[in-house]
Amino acid sequence: MVQRLTTAAADFDGQLTTLLSRKQEASPAVAEAVRGIIQQVIKEGDGALRDLTRRFDSHEADSLAISVAERDAAADRASPEAVAALEAAAARIETYHRKQMPDDELYTDEEGVTLGWRWTPLEAVGLYVPGGLASYPSSVLMNAIPPRVAAVPRMVMVVPTPDGQINPLVMAAARICGIEEIYRIGGAQAVAALAYGTETIASVDKIVGPGNAYVAAAKREVFGHVGIDSIAGPSEIVVVSDNRSPAPWVAADLLSQAEHDPSSQSILITDDAAFADAVEGAAEDLLAVSPREAITRRAWEQNSALIVVRRLGGDGMEVVNRLAPEHLELAVDKPEDLLPSIRHAGAIFLGRHTPEAVGDYVAGPNHVLPTARAARFSSGLSVADFLKRSSLIGCSAESLEVIGPLAMTLAEKEGLWAHGESVRQRLEDRGQ
Amino acid sequence: MVQRLTTAAADFDGQLTTLLSRKQEASPAVAEAVRGIIQQVIKEGDGALRDLTRRFDSHEADSLAISVAERDAAADRASPEAVAALEAAAARIETYHRKQMPDDELYTDEEGVTLGWRWTPLEAVGLYVPGGLASYPSSVLMNAIPPRVAAVPRMVMVVPTPDGQINPLVMAAARICGIEEIYRIGGAQAVAALAYGTETIASVDKIVGPGNAYVAAAKREVFGHVGIDSIAGPSEIVVVSDNRSPAPWVAADLLSQAEHDPSSQSILITDDAAFADAVEGAAEDLLAVSPREAITRRAWEQNSALIVVRRLGGDGMEVVNRLAPEHLELAVDKPEDLLPSIRHAGAIFLGRHTPEAVGDYVAGPNHVLPTARAARFSSGLSVADFLKRSSLIGCSAESLEVIGPLAMTLAEKEGLWAHGESVRQRLEDRGQ
Repeated sequence: MVQRLTTAAADFDGQLTTLLSRKQEASPAVAEAVRGIIQQVIKEGDGALRDLTRRFDSHEADSLAISVAERDAAADRASPEAVAALEAAAARIETYHRKQMPDDELYTDEEGVTLGWRWTPLEAVGLYVPGGLASYPSSVLMNAIPPRVAAVPRMVMVVPTPDGQINPLVMAAARICGIEEIYRIGGAQAVAALAYGTETIASVDKIVGPGNAYVAAAKREVFGHVGIDSIAGPSEIVVVSDNRSPAPWVAADLLSQAEHDPSSQSILITDDAAFADAVEGAAEDLLAVSPREAITRRAWEQNSALIVVRRLGGDGMEVVNRLAPEHLELAVDKPEDLLPSIRHAGAIFLGRHTPEAVGDYVAGPNHVLPTARAARFSSGLSVADFLKRSSLIGCSAESLEVIGPLAMTLAEKEGLWAHGESVRQRLEDRGQ
Repeated sequence: MVQRLTTAAADFDGQLTTLLSRKQEASPAVAEAVRGIIQQVIKEGDGALRDLTRRFDSHEADSLAISVAERDAAADRASPEAVAALEAAAARIETYHRKQMPDDELYTDEEGVTLGWRWTPLEAVGLYVPGGLASYPSSVLMNAIPPRVAAVPRMVMVVPTPDGQINPLVMAAARICGIEEIYRIGGAQAVAALAYGTETIASVDKIVGPGNAYVAAAKREVFGHVGIDSIAGPSEIVVVSDNRSPAPWVAADLLSQAEHDPSSQSILITDDAAFADAVEGAAEDLLAVSPREAITRRAWEQNSALIVVRRLGGDGMEVVNRLAPEHLELAVDKPEDLLPSIRHAGAIFLGRHTPEAVGDYVAGPNHVLPTARAARFSSGLSVADFLKRSSLIGCSAESLEVIGPLAMTLAEKEGLWAHGESVRQRLEDRGQ
């Protein structure tokens, strides 16, 4: 049975806190194993990659690279219908992300100081793609299209190929994204190779893409030496619905996150207890026919909840902000009325006809979103993650006379002598 | 003596790599000590903060909070001239950062799908201010003004007060920035309190600000649970100059970074060996009179370099991009001609009359910038660091009919049954 909560209960705050505290930290044992693997890759390079691939993926990676010919041969085995859907999705994702391109700025202020900034793309980005069952072609699109829009010149994909098996649709996605540099490696060793480089693999500047606990721990370990996207946790959804949504729609939306992983979390917020009953019943009906029942039921019964609130736009929105969900559906007639009250959410799905699944695949916005309440302080993946901003400052001799003395005063107070001297000399030389 | 390199040397690449590899990683011992401190704060709360403050800062923090009255009493002891300079600097910093405010977006595409995004501020930000000598009021402005511009409602400052001493100008900066919640704690324990909260201190969502090795390790440790700005390393500057800049100006600019810390790095790139000689001589003259000679000389002689290149706009820019410096001065007549070749730099100072020091204090752009080559993949602090973006997706029944089937195809290929089901139900119900 799925948990039931109500904001009317005296201990609601405590119950909600328990619901929020499910986040699993990486174990120290995983972190230690990962540090060992990273050191091995730094020391032994390609040899370490071959050893570890033999050990973890059970095949000989004689050639670490998957050539463009191999990529295409695999991609050609993918279903044409699925490839066409990927292409249509890619076009929509690209259109949306192009709107995110930020502008450069350059202006001269009243004091005559030239100010502004300038965006430039990263030079090399590594994309981690999980192997096996969790190898999702849609993730390739979501991680590879933003850097392509940002004009990153070098994109590298790593994907483990357990027992030598290559996923045709992942290769089709790579082809659609124009990725030509691909290596058949995975795990912490692939992250280490991207961060530090080996004889075959030149290092990159940032690593993105989902992975298991070892990949997450490796990304945390190399963070700072290279950039990383974020440490993704289990997926989550919050559906806010009045009693006028069809219960089976809402149940399917909730289960669509629960089916990802036993540690996923799905939460309904409604103002009608009878509607919560109807959703629970509809979920049971769906679970009975789902081919992923085992996973889905664990997430549903262990981590999920139906929360009855007094008013969707009142205590309902307070609960939403406490949860700071990755995905938030507003299954009501006027979602725009609720929007101003929402302070934290990775992606917001507006109205009853917008199942979260369209956001996973084809709507256009990125499906890489902050999990585990990280929407309190971070955003989904975007073009800006593949650009960086250089600030621009230009003084003329005249404008330095205006603002330079302020800098000298503050430098003196901070005891930074040469800072002041660098301004003083220029002002003095001009004064002569 | 400062190192001399030339791109004409056969082993230049190797020499440059050595110059680049100075970055010091945090020691495992520091990380372990910090993990212990964090656990202690999580378990014992305020008690742990008082114990650790007694141990590390040698005073009794009976009241952890510095009240607004205490803040103002301390601020009133600051020099009026310095306070006026801080106020002028704050106004310029605010004006620049207001231009960074991003726009929301909402549009309906050809398929009838409503798409866009919406920015919201973080709810609570913690600002770490180092104590003692490295307690810089300018850092308070640079870290506190962007969240204020972003409309973050709660700002918390932590600042250690060794032996109970409060820095008047830091308190003046806090007052200028409207910071009213201040605690007299520092080190890893302050970071832990901000991240996890104690009886007295409510937790925040993101922690920014510079600190020593313990603070840096603590920020790395709590990253993910809360947001952090970046792990700052020693300061760096690269000055690109032809032989027409006054050598003492360039020397002062180079030493203004060297004087921060013995591990700072200052690099001159010039196309004239005789000019490099002149700068070296001028630096010696300055070192002889600097009150910070000991620190400055260590950074200058151990980590810094004069690099002679063939052409500033050619191999000179390649060296700049390899270095990816925090601060880059273009001390030439037409800096705009070099700009297109620059791929990585935290802040760029245009022309001979723009000493880096104006950027530290009063120009307007942020002085919190990526160090240790992180400009390859990250940017200086900005208003965007205190906002997050929720993507918006809205389908009508009609537009779901257009894009829904694509999502169903891809969900099926990825084996995510309920994802497909959530779309199928809506399409079927409409079809009836």
